[in-house]
Amino acid sequence: MSRAVQLAALGLVGFGLPAWAVTLIADVRAQQLIVACAVVSFLGFLGTVYLVPKVAAKTQARGICGKDLNKRGTPAGDIPIPESAGLAPGCVFLLCVICFELLHYYDIGSLVGFVRSGFTGELKTEPIADSWLVDYNAALATIGFMLFLGFSDDVLDIRWRVKLILPLFASLPLLVAYSGGTGIALPKPLAALGLPPYLELGILYKVYMVMLGIFCTNSINILAGVNGLEAGQTFIVACAVLLHNLLSVAGWPGWGAGGAAAPGVRDGHLFSAGLMLPLAATTFGLLVFNWYPSKVFVGDTFTYFAGMTIAVAGILGHFSETLLLFLLPQVFNFVYSLPQLFGIVHCPRHRLPVFDPATGLLRPKDAPDWNLVNLTLQLFGRCGENALCIRLLALQVASCALTFGLRYLLQGYYK
Amino acid sequence: MSRAVQLAALGLVGFGLPAWAVTLIADVRAQQLIVACAVVSFLGFLGTVYLVPKVAAKTQARGICGKDLNKRGTPAGDIPIPESAGLAPGCVFLLCVICFELLHYYDIGSLVGFVRSGFTGELKTEPIADSWLVDYNAALATIGFMLFLGFSDDVLDIRWRVKLILPLFASLPLLVAYSGGTGIALPKPLAALGLPPYLELGILYKVYMVMLGIFCTNSINILAGVNGLEAGQTFIVACAVLLHNLLSVAGWPGWGAGGAAAPGVRDGHLFSAGLMLPLAATTFGLLVFNWYPSKVFVGDTFTYFAGMTIAVAGILGHFSETLLLFLLPQVFNFVYSLPQLFGIVHCPRHRLPVFDPATGLLRPKDAPDWNLVNLTLQLFGRCGENALCIRLLALQVASCALTFGLRYLLQGYYK
Repeated sequence: MSRAVQLAALGLVGFGLPAWAVTLIADVRAQQLIVACAVVSFLGFLGTVYLVPKVAAKTQARGICGKDLNKRGTPAGDIPIPESAGLAPGCVFLLCVICFELLHYYDIGSLVGFVRSGFTGELKTEPIADSWLVDYNAALATIGFMLFLGFSDDVLDIRWRVKLILPLFASLPLLVAYSGGTGIALPKPLAALGLPPYLELGILYKVYMVMLGIFCTNSINILAGVNGLEAGQTFIVACAVLLHNLLSVAGWPGWGAGGAAAPGVRDGHLFSAGLMLPLAATTFGLLVFNWYPSKVFVGDTFTYFAGMTIAVAGILGHFSETLLLFLLPQVFNFVYSLPQLFGIVHCPRHRLPVFDPATGLLRPKDAPDWNLVNLTLQLFGRCGENALCIRLLALQVASCALTFGLRYLLQGYYK
Repeated sequence: MSRAVQLAALGLVGFGLPAWAVTLIADVRAQQLIVACAVVSFLGFLGTVYLVPKVAAKTQARGICGKDLNKRGTPAGDIPIPESAGLAPGCVFLLCVICFELLHYYDIGSLVGFVRSGFTGELKTEPIADSWLVDYNAALATIGFMLFLGFSDDVLDIRWRVKLILPLFASLPLLVAYSGGTGIALPKPLAALGLPPYLELGILYKVYMVMLGIFCTNSINILAGVNGLEAGQTFIVACAVLLHNLLSVAGWPGWGAGGAAAPGVRDGHLFSAGLMLPLAATTFGLLVFNWYPSKVFVGDTFTYFAGMTIAVAGILGHFSETLLLFLLPQVFNFVYSLPQLFGIVHCPRHRLPVFDPATGLLRPKDAPDWNLVNLTLQLFGRCGENALCIRLLALQVASCALTFGLRYLLQGYYK
């Protein structure tokens, strides 16, 4: 399959399923909001495609670029590839989210009528709860702060021990402003053991929030090293979360009590959808350049920003357990990497496979590094970089499909 | 005067007057909050002093540095000076503001008792209005976004036409979340002309907000080119605004109706004080390294972040007219620079004076550039760089003193 066909297939599946889910939503106001957000996100996609080459030219001029180690020994391995291209989708994402916040003030139906009639007629406004705005602005501050720290890291090469806690700083605005519940609804089987149906965690819940932020940012950052993998996994997870959100808003069987979801639950999922749609769209814009063979690298700028956005959606949407199921490959890769990260097993500077210029295939080192990329090569045999990325992304899709299946089968039994 | 004495004198005047004003405040809760904020800001000062050399080493390693053009021809002119040191006070400032937000949740008196008794005893919480949190988080998002864009500019060298509108993007979170009044109280003399006492501006007020953000960031950015000038003017303006805020909270004669200020007015000034205290403290930490002879340059990172912080304080504190009086030298320099900025008069890459290595003095070019730095040299004669900076900062102090004097004399007549 050519590069364009691969990208088109990815985009079709990623955006197609959520588009179908939108048609299931009975609430007109919610549906209008999501369509408006989709329009803004589409503009965000175009903006990203426009901006990435410009940002890449600037970062390259400043010497923020690297060589593609998986192509060493071929002519493509000698070309410096601009780094930190994630700056473009990150900034466009923030603008999309701000635009979307603005749209919330208006009745979308009257807004469409207003534009159609040549900016005349009545423009109805909608009341907005202050508590919603608090969450929204805290999310904006947190994601923006993380994007900034990611870019600072790309430019200044911060030591990894400091890097690890950067998400802690970034998640502070969210932590301080968070006013939602600090407990978790326990699964029904545990209630049989005498545990309460709702466990109040208090301050521990806030610790959990920080941990989730640190995990999401770093776990995407270390499942990397293959062209298109960081942006690809982000795109798939964002689309899966989006589908989950939309099904919950629609109250599809298995998602909600067989009808419209309760207002509180619904708002959380709408909020998350408002973050995931622009994330998926801008990430797809980045993939246009980052897919194999990469013309740009995404940098920590992207992985940090994307990871934090997903974590914020999970926290404020109140579905962090489901989120962790979507992230199963990341969880596995993180746990499997721990022996090397903690220095129990020798950890080289780059935990990449070895490229054989003669065959064009990748193989694990003689002492394979402990991560999912190398494990995939060990289990499924040598392959080219493009095929390896597709295999890893297929695993991501499988884990998302598994989550949806479990969720559907366990309805009523679990919670 | 030696370097240390100059810095000490600046710090003493800058922090001394607001410290005196705190003693005038009768409201215990407000006084406690300000003292708590001062403690956090002092930690911020220490943090900045700790971080600046580390950040400077990192930016220098990445090649983000420049030579001191006002020392060309001497050995000091050949040393590359690290740029973008404003990253350190910027990040520390954001952390201070977040800490301060957290402190708002607690009764400060009970917090002190809690810490004194070895973290036992009752920790009383205070109710926080959601509308306050909205403003706070919007301010945080805006300032953080501006800091990020400033740093991006330092790294990527964005074209100046794009640069000019960066504050527009950064001020969007504030603009969207802003829910305060959108009118201005007109001066009493204008009421005699038949104008209403309160003029509702509607959308024009939001345009004014954006303009103020663009003006503050760029006007500090172009009153520059002398060691310590950018950070020095920021420090003086921040201290003046802080003094104004504290006098307003205290209801000092001329500030408020001769007693405690109305709750709405008071909250705005408390909010602004919570931004100005950490700004003054972290800027002073930066000045320790940036004062003549500079060991670091502040970069657009600092000027953008500082300008936006001051603008946000003026907007959310509702004293933007007084703020513009404090910024008289910047207003003058901006207007005086317009012929060059618009290309009516030839504009070189750097609008700096000429340095004479033999005498160590600065003089204007034969065709002097149209800015305040050169005008000061033309009016008051040649001088060294340190003396020039002190003269310009003295002008800033004078314009702040004038504002306070006018405000005191015009009480009752003006508004």
